[in-house]
Amino acid sequence: MNMSSANVSERAQQPPALAISTVIFALRPDSERTRPTLWLPLVRRTRQPFRDLWALPGGPLSATESLQDAAARNLQETTGLQPSYLEQLYAFGGLDRSPSQRVVSIVYWALVKPDEAALARETENVRWFRADRLDKLAFDHNLIVDYGLWRLRNKVEYGSIAYDLLGDRFTLAQVREVYEAVLGRTLDPANFRRHLRATPDIEATDEYLQGVRHRPPRLYRYTGAAAQRNNGPLSQSG
Amino acid sequence: MNMSSANVSERAQQPPALAISTVIFALRPDSERTRPTLWLPLVRRTRQPFRDLWALPGGPLSATESLQDAAARNLQETTGLQPSYLEQLYAFGGLDRSPSQRVVSIVYWALVKPDEAALARETENVRWFRADRLDKLAFDHNLIVDYGLWRLRNKVEYGSIAYDLLGDRFTLAQVREVYEAVLGRTLDPANFRRHLRATPDIEATDEYLQGVRHRPPRLYRYTGAAAQRNNGPLSQSG
Repeated sequence: MNMSSANVSERAQQPPALAISTVIFALRPDSERTRPTLWLPLVRRTRQPFRDLWALPGGPLSATESLQDAAARNLQETTGLQPSYLEQLYAFGGLDRSPSQRVVSIVYWALVKPDEAALARETENVRWFRADRLDKLAFDHNLIVDYGLWRLRNKVEYGSIAYDLLGDRFTLAQVREVYEAVLGRTLDPANFRRHLRATPDIEATDEYLQGVRHRPPRLYRYTGAAAQRNNGPLSQSG
Repeated sequence: MNMSSANVSERAQQPPALAISTVIFALRPDSERTRPTLWLPLVRRTRQPFRDLWALPGGPLSATESLQDAAARNLQETTGLQPSYLEQLYAFGGLDRSPSQRVVSIVYWALVKPDEAALARETENVRWFRADRLDKLAFDHNLIVDYGLWRLRNKVEYGSIAYDLLGDRFTLAQVREVYEAVLGRTLDPANFRRHLRATPDIEATDEYLQGVRHRPPRLYRYTGAAAQRNNGPLSQSG
């Protein structure tokens, strides 16, 4: 999207508009294969911008609806679905998402069980697509789908956020203290140490805690991926 | 907050305003105890609404800043911090969050390492508080802090989202298929089955998959907490 400087200054005077969109994932068998894959419903745009491209179901936020209610209503209107799992995914607010006004989209996502997905409506302008085989979608909706898939992958694997609250070197007791502070309960030190030593993401160093005279504890470092600082598909574009 | 019906209809005509807020957690030792606990910086409000109450650092979204940039700038201006970990937490958009105009707040959160936290500025109107001992804050900011703490707890424990993509009864192979579809790679069936049997969250039933003649596989059911459908402190108020 090329914008003249006149357009840029016009945009700067308007407050950003708010919209709600939804990404709905379901497992479906593929016609060519037996193994099920992830699918999602999309809506064909019937007007500019991005006319005739497919887009996530969505619309503007009305002044009298909560974010979640707006997402649920929109989803129901386009696909007929009322998923049991509907959760906020992310707010997308990049400066150039839409060619006209700046739009901040608060995106919800739904995971749909097979029996729910079987009830979904398909029409000429609402269709299901394989999530890993999408063409160019309207706006930044490919990025939003990629982000949804990434969050889904993250959620099924173990998260390790404790190390973002610690320095570069730490004792095993300090890791336990993070967990205890976060969970609000004490943990058995021996069990925790055993559990932690079995994780591949931390590594013993040759250093020991300073200032402790009797048997100073060994320092460790985190070697796992910085999942928290890597925002997946969002890392490049914010 | 009591609102007359005149106020309600005035509000319904204004588009919702957008604001950015930040929750910053750091581990700090407590003066009374040796074990560190979670702390966060707050800003004293110097005008109405909620004058003299403490609030999360934040402000309106300017038209020419990305959401993340606005959060980082705001954080830097109030506390002097430039945390290495700054991530979107949630968009709060309830209808009655603010007594005047409807405000949708996109909240970012930062986890701050001890060496970063040591550099934080404190002034008369910017102070650090223990996260588990807060008085009544301005707006819905107690709820936002509670939600941040809940997300933090969730992140340190194992997540189990696969069961939201399955029916009430499933085979172990179907669980593996969810993981494979989500992770985009195949998993060793024997290893996966062993791993899954060791988790306390699924339970064998007396039922078997229908329509399979030779050795039909057993069906299981999920018995763990429905973490995905429980939105923690947000469950009540949306």
